Amino acid sequence: MVYDLIIIGGGPAGVTAAIYAVRQNIRVGVITKNIGGQVLEKAVEIENYLGFSKISGEKLSGLFEQQLKENKIEVILEEVVKIEKKNTGFLIFTKEGKIYETYSAIIASGSNPRSLNIPGEAEFLGRGVSYCVICDGPLFKGKKVAVIGGGNAGLEAALFLSSYVQMVYILEIQKEMSATRENQEKIKGSQKIEVITSARVLKIQGENFVKSLVYQDLRTGEEKELVVGGVFIESGRVPATQFVAGLVSCNEKGEIIVKEENCQTGVEGLFAVGDCRNGKYKQIITAAADGVKAALSAFEYLRKNNQTFKNEQN
Amino acid sequence: MVYDLIIIGGGPAGVTAAIYAVRQNIRVGVITKNIGGQVLEKAVEIENYLGFSKISGEKLSGLFEQQLKENKIEVILEEVVKIEKKNTGFLIFTKEGKIYETYSAIIASGSNPRSLNIPGEAEFLGRGVSYCVICDGPLFKGKKVAVIGGGNAGLEAALFLSSYVQMVYILEIQKEMSATRENQEKIKGSQKIEVITSARVLKIQGENFVKSLVYQDLRTGEEKELVVGGVFIESGRVPATQFVAGLVSCNEKGEIIVKEENCQTGVEGLFAVGDCRNGKYKQIITAAADGVKAALSAFEYLRKNNQTFKNEQN
Repeated sequence: MVYDLIIIGGGPAGVTAAIYAVRQNIRVGVITKNIGGQVLEKAVEIENYLGFSKISGEKLSGLFEQQLKENKIEVILEEVVKIEKKNTGFLIFTKEGKIYETYSAIIASGSNPRSLNIPGEAEFLGRGVSYCVICDGPLFKGKKVAVIGGGNAGLEAALFLSSYVQMVYILEIQKEMSATRENQEKIKGSQKIEVITSARVLKIQGENFVKSLVYQDLRTGEEKELVVGGVFIESGRVPATQFVAGLVSCNEKGEIIVKEENCQTGVEGLFAVGDCRNGKYKQIITAAADGVKAALSAFEYLRKNNQTFKNEQN
Repeated sequence: MVYDLIIIGGGPAGVTAAIYAVRQNIRVGVITKNIGGQVLEKAVEIENYLGFSKISGEKLSGLFEQQLKENKIEVILEEVVKIEKKNTGFLIFTKEGKIYETYSAIIASGSNPRSLNIPGEAEFLGRGVSYCVICDGPLFKGKKVAVIGGGNAGLEAALFLSSYVQMVYILEIQKEMSATRENQEKIKGSQKIEVITSARVLKIQGENFVKSLVYQDLRTGEEKELVVGGVFIESGRVPATQFVAGLVSCNEKGEIIVKEENCQTGVEGLFAVGDCRNGKYKQIITAAADGVKAALSAFEYLRKNNQTFKNEQN
């Protein structure tokens, strides 16, 4: 059995692509680890998605899931590890050992948190080091914690944590934080959040569990120890595109290069959408719009190649 | 008083732009005839907007309005008739005789129904001829009506009307309708809808009110009369860009030409988003994504020009 279109990823871009594709009456499958993607990990309520004044990431992801169900879209909860070109289409390999064949594919694999690559980071992962406040935050009730990164994700993580923990330190390597004014105003209002700028984190220390971190004060060069029971790393994200290496062109950030107007990669029949592709704006709405463009472009591609309704005739 | 950003239009593109812009803490105003734009006129439930499995256009527009209110965004219910460049910004003139000054502007004016330009069309407007089924459809209860146009809008109009009227004829000038398979399947299921293809509508006739229309059967050349009490025109749309003539470049369709990546027009500080700009995909989500890009680009433009927070200092 060959799919007309396989969508890799279940975030806003992937789900929207699926909704648009299935309405074209083609055989669609979505392969994803979860429904929601980054939306699911949002530490604060989402206030900038059109249609909802305020909604939690968990609730919005639930609506994605419902919409997939009501559209009878096949969701395969597996992790894609490789894509190969094969004659008229693609073979998609998953970690679970399955191989799926499809005439076209949309990569909506999003991004992963960026590692700091410092001593202690990998060692204490799951024992005080975390990349997901919404998953792990509540475990740090009453403790002092650090958030590494003064962008929006870092500040939102700190705001989320501040309702559980005793104290949150935000460590930012630059002289100023890059988060929006709005988020900066919000953290000023919290007595539990302290910002340390010009701070380069050097290592994370502990025994069974994290006990402190060491950072360099870049204004003086001095090394300082900060006693914390948890370290949340919010130092940006890297596109989740390792599994397409060698198949499509990526830019220096690792983002798949596509045509802005239809999200097509350099390989015919293969599209990339949302955070895993090149593009300045990484928002829920812009990712969803990518999904629309890619799904309709994939349908055009299938129709042009007379493959669209092959499955129906079988 | 000078605005940092004025957004012209209150559809998905304009509302999203406003939500993103106001979060940057700049002075934003939205000038629009209504909140919702084309969403407000949707004849069938919307099923392809991420987050809602099914929602009426009226209800979704209500959510837009609520979101504007909760973000304390100033909405001016007027109609823009002209934009002029003025030194560092723009003057925006409304039909109501007001002039607004702004450093930057986003045109989100959408589109208007396309006229057929046939005898009787203007004459019977409001007396049997309509461009909005959702506004006027219920008035035709129990009558026979025609819908001109076999695209998605035409078929959705026919589906909407079929629950009120005795009979709906869809007249399509081409040999085949251009609507999606899904919509074509839906109308096949209705005994009240009949499709007439290869039909060029020549005139609309009546006395006080529409009594019939005359069309040419393009297969035979024969002219035929169809007795109907109402004619709904769904023959595509034209971008609502007349008020920017001479200021920005438009393509042959009348769409404002912008850079795909940031929705900027040829005039610095002036952006265009959604259905009024060039671009293949005209969907609620793609319009909203345009709003994101333009709002963030406008903010960058303002910051670069040191004008952003001028108002705050006054």
